[in-house]
Amino acid sequence: MRIALVAALVMTSGIATADEGQWQPYQMPSIADKLSARGIDIPADKLADLTSYPMNAVVGLGYCTASFVSPQGLVVTNHHCAYKAIQYNSKKEHNYLEQGFLATSKDKEPSAGPNERLYITEEVRNVTSDVIKNLSQEPLTRIEEIESHSKSLIKDCESDENYRCNVRSFHNGLEYYLIKQLMIRDVRLVYAPPESVGAYGGDIDNYEYPRHSGDFAFLRAYVGKDGKPAAYSEDNIPYTPKSYLKINGNGVKAGDGVFVAGYPGTTSRYNLTSELKFASDWLYPTQAKRYQFQIDTIKAMGQEDADIAIKYAGNMASMANRMKKLNGLLEGFKATDIVGIKQQREDDFLAWLKKNPALNQQLISELEVLLAEQQQQYQANYYFSNAQSSSLLTAANQLYRLAKEKQKPDAEREIGYQERDLAMLSSRLKRIDSSFAVSVDKTLWLQDLDAYVSQINRVAALDEMLQLDKADANKANDIKATSTKELSARLDGFYSLTTLTDQAKRLAWMEADVKAFETSTDPFIRLAVALYDANIAQEKAEKTLDGKLSVARPAYMATVIDYYKANNWPVYPDANGTLRISYGMVDGYQSRDALYKQPFTKLDGIVAKHTGVAPYKAPQKLLDAIKEHRIGDHLVQNLYQDPRSWLCRLFSCADKPEEFNSVPVNFLSSVDTTGGNSGSPVFNGQGELVGLNFDSTYEAITKDWFFNPTITRAVHVDIRYILWMMDKVDNAQNLLNEMDIIRD
Amino acid sequence: MRIALVAALVMTSGIATADEGQWQPYQMPSIADKLSARGIDIPADKLADLTSYPMNAVVGLGYCTASFVSPQGLVVTNHHCAYKAIQYNSKKEHNYLEQGFLATSKDKEPSAGPNERLYITEEVRNVTSDVIKNLSQEPLTRIEEIESHSKSLIKDCESDENYRCNVRSFHNGLEYYLIKQLMIRDVRLVYAPPESVGAYGGDIDNYEYPRHSGDFAFLRAYVGKDGKPAAYSEDNIPYTPKSYLKINGNGVKAGDGVFVAGYPGTTSRYNLTSELKFASDWLYPTQAKRYQFQIDTIKAMGQEDADIAIKYAGNMASMANRMKKLNGLLEGFKATDIVGIKQQREDDFLAWLKKNPALNQQLISELEVLLAEQQQQYQANYYFSNAQSSSLLTAANQLYRLAKEKQKPDAEREIGYQERDLAMLSSRLKRIDSSFAVSVDKTLWLQDLDAYVSQINRVAALDEMLQLDKADANKANDIKATSTKELSARLDGFYSLTTLTDQAKRLAWMEADVKAFETSTDPFIRLAVALYDANIAQEKAEKTLDGKLSVARPAYMATVIDYYKANNWPVYPDANGTLRISYGMVDGYQSRDALYKQPFTKLDGIVAKHTGVAPYKAPQKLLDAIKEHRIGDHLVQNLYQDPRSWLCRLFSCADKPEEFNSVPVNFLSSVDTTGGNSGSPVFNGQGELVGLNFDSTYEAITKDWFFNPTITRAVHVDIRYILWMMDKVDNAQNLLNEMDIIRD
Repeated sequence: MRIALVAALVMTSGIATADEGQWQPYQMPSIADKLSARGIDIPADKLADLTSYPMNAVVGLGYCTASFVSPQGLVVTNHHCAYKAIQYNSKKEHNYLEQGFLATSKDKEPSAGPNERLYITEEVRNVTSDVIKNLSQEPLTRIEEIESHSKSLIKDCESDENYRCNVRSFHNGLEYYLIKQLMIRDVRLVYAPPESVGAYGGDIDNYEYPRHSGDFAFLRAYVGKDGKPAAYSEDNIPYTPKSYLKINGNGVKAGDGVFVAGYPGTTSRYNLTSELKFASDWLYPTQAKRYQFQIDTIKAMGQEDADIAIKYAGNMASMANRMKKLNGLLEGFKATDIVGIKQQREDDFLAWLKKNPALNQQLISELEVLLAEQQQQYQANYYFSNAQSSSLLTAANQLYRLAKEKQKPDAEREIGYQERDLAMLSSRLKRIDSSFAVSVDKTLWLQDLDAYVSQINRVAALDEMLQLDKADANKANDIKATSTKELSARLDGFYSLTTLTDQAKRLAWMEADVKAFETSTDPFIRLAVALYDANIAQEKAEKTLDGKLSVARPAYMATVIDYYKANNWPVYPDANGTLRISYGMVDGYQSRDALYKQPFTKLDGIVAKHTGVAPYKAPQKLLDAIKEHRIGDHLVQNLYQDPRSWLCRLFSCADKPEEFNSVPVNFLSSVDTTGGNSGSPVFNGQGELVGLNFDSTYEAITKDWFFNPTITRAVHVDIRYILWMMDKVDNAQNLLNEMDIIRD
Repeated sequence: MRIALVAALVMTSGIATADEGQWQPYQMPSIADKLSARGIDIPADKLADLTSYPMNAVVGLGYCTASFVSPQGLVVTNHHCAYKAIQYNSKKEHNYLEQGFLATSKDKEPSAGPNERLYITEEVRNVTSDVIKNLSQEPLTRIEEIESHSKSLIKDCESDENYRCNVRSFHNGLEYYLIKQLMIRDVRLVYAPPESVGAYGGDIDNYEYPRHSGDFAFLRAYVGKDGKPAAYSEDNIPYTPKSYLKINGNGVKAGDGVFVAGYPGTTSRYNLTSELKFASDWLYPTQAKRYQFQIDTIKAMGQEDADIAIKYAGNMASMANRMKKLNGLLEGFKATDIVGIKQQREDDFLAWLKKNPALNQQLISELEVLLAEQQQQYQANYYFSNAQSSSLLTAANQLYRLAKEKQKPDAEREIGYQERDLAMLSSRLKRIDSSFAVSVDKTLWLQDLDAYVSQINRVAALDEMLQLDKADANKANDIKATSTKELSARLDGFYSLTTLTDQAKRLAWMEADVKAFETSTDPFIRLAVALYDANIAQEKAEKTLDGKLSVARPAYMATVIDYYKANNWPVYPDANGTLRISYGMVDGYQSRDALYKQPFTKLDGIVAKHTGVAPYKAPQKLLDAIKEHRIGDHLVQNLYQDPRSWLCRLFSCADKPEEFNSVPVNFLSSVDTTGGNSGSPVFNGQGELVGLNFDSTYEAITKDWFFNPTITRAVHVDIRYILWMMDKVDNAQNLLNEMDIIRD
């Protein structure tokens, strides 16, 4: 079966056909024909222009995407992207996560928190020649030169404190782009439905469909009176964006072309089959095992102690999300032989390569040697890295590293320790308190140390500091058995003697010099100092390998791109957290044999799922509005293409398109997204806002490695549900009035 | 929401619209227009004629339906209907349940077991006037007269030992029909796939869809050399049926009209809302609780003792099935407010009644008084009835009753104890051994006695015999707490002293006279004698109530039928185990919001479900045949209506009809079925065999009370899967050659 399936998939899906592709905006004109074939009528040129509508209304949050939707700086994103902002403003007296929040006027809009930022990409410049000029052939030097060139480009770009710049590698180091983003620092919370709407279905429904999430929230950008970004101040005024999205209150229907713009994080679609094998055979199962152990541990401790449950709620949610993603990856690899598909493609590439004897025939084999080395390195370091997982040790490591780096001129410091990074480092060090309990930190660290002790790749400094027995491969279990108990007692000593649990004392170390660290008696600081050389050595080894890969990977990618072009296949770079556009069609999918998932869910589905027990505990006001059929002009009669409907009446179709007579809640499309695309505006063919991206389906999780067009669907909140909630449930007329809403 | 939903369902589904209806064959001409609208072209007159094709090829098994498919008496039915026959022939050396069975020639066809029967309905005659003539107004006498008239009709009909006759009540006693069936007593096992095919998905998939069951098996009818039914003998010859079904190897496609003929057991669609309420609020939850307790008990005991697990496997399967059905009923009542719908209908009926002052306005209220009494009676007797649940006590009760009844002339004996019933009673008494273990029998009995002791409706004779404390409503729990232990010890005494566990001794009691029982020291016999009067009193009370209902129910039904006719709604009687025809369309359904279940599953779905762990452990030969795409002329390109396919290509449909390129395994249709319809032939519009009915979907379980046309679907094995299995997997060419298979 596997072989037949592979052949079928390779045949039917081809490579980079269908709607696959997370395109750099500048590439849009090159796929103009595909866009117009999908009914996307907005000129491709316009999508390539970051300075005009709609691209200059797209906003990054650092971890999510958002967009401007009013001339007064109103921003819409996912509820789960605004989660921290809502949590930040929630108190016992007014729990906005539980009750939702609506500022009925601008003076009632609180700060979303000191660390919230909005990034507006204003310029993306190809700086490849600057980054790779005159590179040494010595690997470590080479990678340091790449870093140094990048830092210098960033420094020039960030002359103005209102801008944040980054240099990103595309196509695994084949190209580099400098990204210049305006950074807004005063972000406020405007409107969020309760979590019981925003995350209806919770973890159970996460990555699933049919879905009924009101995963949306509104923020607002504020600037100084001069119109320039500024830190929070009561005197600040709403920001006037260069443009803001028109909203189409009619939404879309099945078969319509749509596109999303956003900041997808990471994909690995050009990686070699051996890399996928490493991930599917070792990395993901190993990580999944550790996460599950941690989740079980925290859950058990949380049941004993409500304080722990509250403190670790955020961690648990993101761990559950990561765990579900890992399980989805592993199940997906079982369901579809992606290794076989990728191997087939690699074989095809090699066959093509053979026909071009002028090209380097050893491209893949040379790369494989380095990848094998990288995997070995990763496996060898895995347990040692985890053995430093205590939040306090992580903090101590970073603080000592900062002291070390401060000895160098700013431009020469390691990325993450330059002056421009210190505010973020400081806020990270502060934030530890919000999700930290000594008992949990110790238990998880002990688990990781246990795993470290049970294997043979040991680091002398750590063994010495924690008095760990030398590993004996033959009787590893015995050693572990005695060590756990002793270790536990030893760790108790660490926590009882440290002062790093005190936020002020922890932050004070940011100003300390190297000597202060080296003479400290704080056990975590002492451990950080002791491990420093080993960590640096590990980092150097990794960088050296990166230096080698910085030659081999681009060489491989350049030839792969030639191969794609020779086949007339479109080429887009793997996701790397930069602004991308992806297009597709509103479409259901074949989930399993005889099980078809239709593209729209509707209000009735919320009621059908409602049990009164979280996460299926819809608020009464929502249930009432549905029960009373309080629909008004939001009523949607039919979301399926007209020809279908009347033809099916004539021909008695097998799977009739259901007539809606309701408000759509969520919908599916074939756009190509990944983590980071949360909150991305979903546009209709005219470039008007018709929804927000917030998830993808379980079957589609493997798309980070292989885009299978028949099952890959992204899940969006329908704009009609958002508008209906605002109009008929939450009475957010003040916001509706700001927005530019088109309706028939 | 409930109110809106009720209104919507009442409006859209109307009453008895869509394909609802389990029609008596004679009624078919009255719905000829509906049949032809569905594309069922075989003349309705033909379907009304039990003596011609196809109805005279339909066969009853007593608990299932089957049909003749060759001139040599070959019969096809469900695997689960032939389960006992397969089990009967399985030995350690050749486990046909596990490996499947195929007789490659007739001399290799073993007996399906001494109790297997095939019933061919030859005549159905309205005998209402005979049954209800000169009935007394005294309720008990009245019901006894009805029984006596029926027995006399049966006796006349059964003059020939080859016939089995029954008188059945239709429309709750409004009409009576005499059913005359030819009874074939030599049934042999011909072909059955392994259980891993026949029950693929097992309990997990039971009542679920998408489904991939090869739920089919073949038997053969044998008769004496004179062509007349005879008991098993090596000299018997294959029976030549009056006709046998033509098989259409092209099957059906979505939208096609289909019909099934078979023996549906019981429905309650005309029952009053109060009866539904009693079932949903008390009866089903109470039964579910008891079943679940029993299932858990047997499971636990089976885990300790493999012998118990094997002996009770059959019981467990049927209990699991009943439990799933009960859960489906209870969940269905939660999902759809059927009580509300039925109440609305009753209100509409009452409104109509008011407009006809000549009619009895008290019809419903008079009936309600009796139904309330019946429910009270049922509740009061429930625990006492269960308190006799031991298989040995049940046997003792029946044996003593037999001795008592034998004192009367045969015609006056209670139904079940006449000469015609004794063979069946004897075989039931024999069969006890195959699923009996003292430890389980005692534990379950003790549970029931515990429940009896914990409530107030007590029977003195039982309390005395088991030395049970008098119930005290105020401290029932205390009494129970002490009684359980004592009771257990007392029951141990019963099992150690009885000889009823010995089959020969048990059967010998069939010949014993009343005196022998009354002087016996066997504790179960003694208990049966002691409980006799109480049981008879209970039976008399029930019969007296039945006598009252035998006036009130037909009166109500007669008026309801007038009401239906006044509205031009078709009227069919509730299912009662007699031959019925139901028609419908091959069709998927909307299972949940945005979740559409398509009408056909295919071979690939078997592979996708296969985990290698039962019940998803497809046999290797099946997996190989699929893997090698060993399809031949069974390949099906498209199972969806042609217009859909090309139109969807033109218009890019939202939910594309998938092109098949495979063999269909199971399919859905909207025909109206219930338990007893298992194995029913599914016919295309020309009356050719295209599948076997074997299940219905979980959402549809409530159809016994209310037929909701939007979600009610029956699940069928596709004839193409059966033919493909025979041809490409099991090489049953000998059988294929006997059959009349039409293929394009």
